[in-house]
Amino acid sequence: MCTASICTIGDEILIGQIVDTNSSFIARELNKIGIKVVFIASVQDDQAEIESKLALCRSISDIVITTGGLGPTKDDITKRVLGKIYNARSSYYHKEQSEIIAEICKKRGIEVSTLNRDQALVPDCCKVLVNKLGTAPGMVFMEYPDNDPAPKLLFSLPGVPYEMRSILPEVLKRIEDQYSLESIYHKTILTYGIPESGLSEMIADWENALPSPVHLAYLPNPASGVKLRLSVYGEEISYARKLVSDAISGLKPILKESIYGEDDQTLESVVANVLTCGSKTLSVAESCTGGRVASRLTMLAGASNYFKGGVVAYDNNVKTGLLKVDPEVIEKFGAVSSECVIQMAEGVKKLMQTDYSVATSGIAGPSGGSDQKPVGTLWIAISGEDRTISVKVILSGEREQNIERFSSYALNYLRLFINNQYI
Amino acid sequence: MCTASICTIGDEILIGQIVDTNSSFIARELNKIGIKVVFIASVQDDQAEIESKLALCRSISDIVITTGGLGPTKDDITKRVLGKIYNARSSYYHKEQSEIIAEICKKRGIEVSTLNRDQALVPDCCKVLVNKLGTAPGMVFMEYPDNDPAPKLLFSLPGVPYEMRSILPEVLKRIEDQYSLESIYHKTILTYGIPESGLSEMIADWENALPSPVHLAYLPNPASGVKLRLSVYGEEISYARKLVSDAISGLKPILKESIYGEDDQTLESVVANVLTCGSKTLSVAESCTGGRVASRLTMLAGASNYFKGGVVAYDNNVKTGLLKVDPEVIEKFGAVSSECVIQMAEGVKKLMQTDYSVATSGIAGPSGGSDQKPVGTLWIAISGEDRTISVKVILSGEREQNIERFSSYALNYLRLFINNQYI
Repeated sequence: MCTASICTIGDEILIGQIVDTNSSFIARELNKIGIKVVFIASVQDDQAEIESKLALCRSISDIVITTGGLGPTKDDITKRVLGKIYNARSSYYHKEQSEIIAEICKKRGIEVSTLNRDQALVPDCCKVLVNKLGTAPGMVFMEYPDNDPAPKLLFSLPGVPYEMRSILPEVLKRIEDQYSLESIYHKTILTYGIPESGLSEMIADWENALPSPVHLAYLPNPASGVKLRLSVYGEEISYARKLVSDAISGLKPILKESIYGEDDQTLESVVANVLTCGSKTLSVAESCTGGRVASRLTMLAGASNYFKGGVVAYDNNVKTGLLKVDPEVIEKFGAVSSECVIQMAEGVKKLMQTDYSVATSGIAGPSGGSDQKPVGTLWIAISGEDRTISVKVILSGEREQNIERFSSYALNYLRLFINNQYI
Repeated sequence: MCTASICTIGDEILIGQIVDTNSSFIARELNKIGIKVVFIASVQDDQAEIESKLALCRSISDIVITTGGLGPTKDDITKRVLGKIYNARSSYYHKEQSEIIAEICKKRGIEVSTLNRDQALVPDCCKVLVNKLGTAPGMVFMEYPDNDPAPKLLFSLPGVPYEMRSILPEVLKRIEDQYSLESIYHKTILTYGIPESGLSEMIADWENALPSPVHLAYLPNPASGVKLRLSVYGEEISYARKLVSDAISGLKPILKESIYGEDDQTLESVVANVLTCGSKTLSVAESCTGGRVASRLTMLAGASNYFKGGVVAYDNNVKTGLLKVDPEVIEKFGAVSSECVIQMAEGVKKLMQTDYSVATSGIAGPSGGSDQKPVGTLWIAISGEDRTISVKVILSGEREQNIERFSSYALNYLRLFINNQYI
């Protein structure tokens, strides 16, 4: 199996200033095309460090992908070090990248400084991967080990995540062109509401009966549920697709409505699709989630097609005044109650004149809990054309995690409701 | 200078399923006590891989911190491998951790399984760092290299972030006890609104005049601004504090209100403090930020002390109906305009009866832009007791980044307004 190492370069990672999200993204994409990532490393902007750790990466894997260290300032030395490692004789200004740099400077209304112009200066021993979104081009270096028929590749990519992501498809294409990779087929089934251990018990018989080419991986995530990835390696794609499709047909009757989507979908994108396709509208009323449900929905482009708005009813006076929750309900049952959250959902639906609404009220912590309503208690209500339902969830976690998971539960129950899958 | 490597262990990192946030957190904490992190690596749950990469880490640094690979299932092998590396002769059940495991199982209403009980089984060659929040204890291993007077330490910590974070203070304490670390003093000054390049020009003279023991680092972040960290190594703390305090006294007149706080404060925590201390209340009206401002404020515990609620006015009918924006204003100037956002702020303030309010309306992208109002345009309004101000911001980025930075700008202008620093 073709192997890869990922090496992120930059002091800002080693002093803990930024979280390295590039490695995870690249690892996932390599994995999808059947390349095994065997090592991930982060090193300082230091010549000896970069040389020694890249030597290690090159010795243990076919492919090395580096990100970072390509900025215009003097602390960024990756390009120079790579030129040295791969025996560059000279450098030249890459024409297309130079033009892009000029264009970027023009847009920003600044002159092309020497530092910026030199971003297009590349060692003669590399091929350039043009960066349309930034000044630093990507580069590919090749070497031909003595006793190995296939060349080894090293890709150097910019550290800015969206620039890196814009070049990565070209990287994957070059890898696929260079290596005769096993054909690979993945399909991911997304589930919500059943913990990993429970899920694995439920599908044990199905899992044991999977045909041998089909491999199953559990990918749990607190905010997006457990993803089940089915993979087939080394088989003809149409055959692999049939195997996986048959397996999924067997899975659906077991997990039923716990399955919310496939591959790159999310709870919010699924809700958005259903509402947009049905030309239905949504509003939200949030207490403990404090705007997180609305924020997740509106992070997706096109939210204005179905989302009219929301009320963050943090204070009880907002619940009673704006959402018309009966003060006696709060007096008698508390704000964290089925009765209150139902009135919140119905209130916001009427206020915003939408087809559906969702409401949350709970205790995110760290304080505010009691024996009867511990920290982690959440009431959710969903209201539709002719009915409103409520449901209680109890989680254990810290405040931020609780709020994030509260919002996932709310989105999931909303999904079930609008699909008529929950009574 | 004392050095450290961090090694995260687990297949889930190498397949890109999770982003490694532990390394960044640990690196930052080590950095604070004057330890230089020279290498960060992620390896698979594989004996040979763990052994070889830990050997590398141990050879290049005084301290190694590993996280992960301590779960109860058979794929987690870190504890066994560490026992082998450090020549364990036997294992034993650690009493306090066993009791915690029993307690955790009791709370979850489950029997203590063999797998769970064995989580307290540790090699005899380590010292245990009790994990009060989970089943897997932390461990410390020591070795005494032949030609080195100081022992080398390896800490193995659980991979679950909040469990790791709960044990880390004990790790730092043991490191400080073991090594005669240089005394170190840090103070971080938080700024918002001036890009790194502009900031560095503004403070160039001040920076050049800094006394030599004071080191300056720029830590830019799109959502929280540029942080300036002043550090003094190897000096008596009271002297270091005086040097830094004098330097900051010189910085304040230059950066003035661009400085929003110190150390671990955030834009939202600063706003929360000022409002809570002044017993003032806040409401928000959000269009393009879609709940993100409210969500950031309510992620902090204690938000109910000052935050009454918000309206996510995504649809123009919500702006006119609920917030009482004049439909003619939207007709004439558009929803993304000073006029509209001022009426939104005043509308929500009246609706929620608060002392202050903040409103946003803009174009997050990718669509919806025009020549006059390109994607990235944001109008913010802040309303107080006797006046309302509005301000325009233009950013360039992708939708999610724009929304995040829009919310930061809104929080920053709110801060300036409530501190009477903006006219």
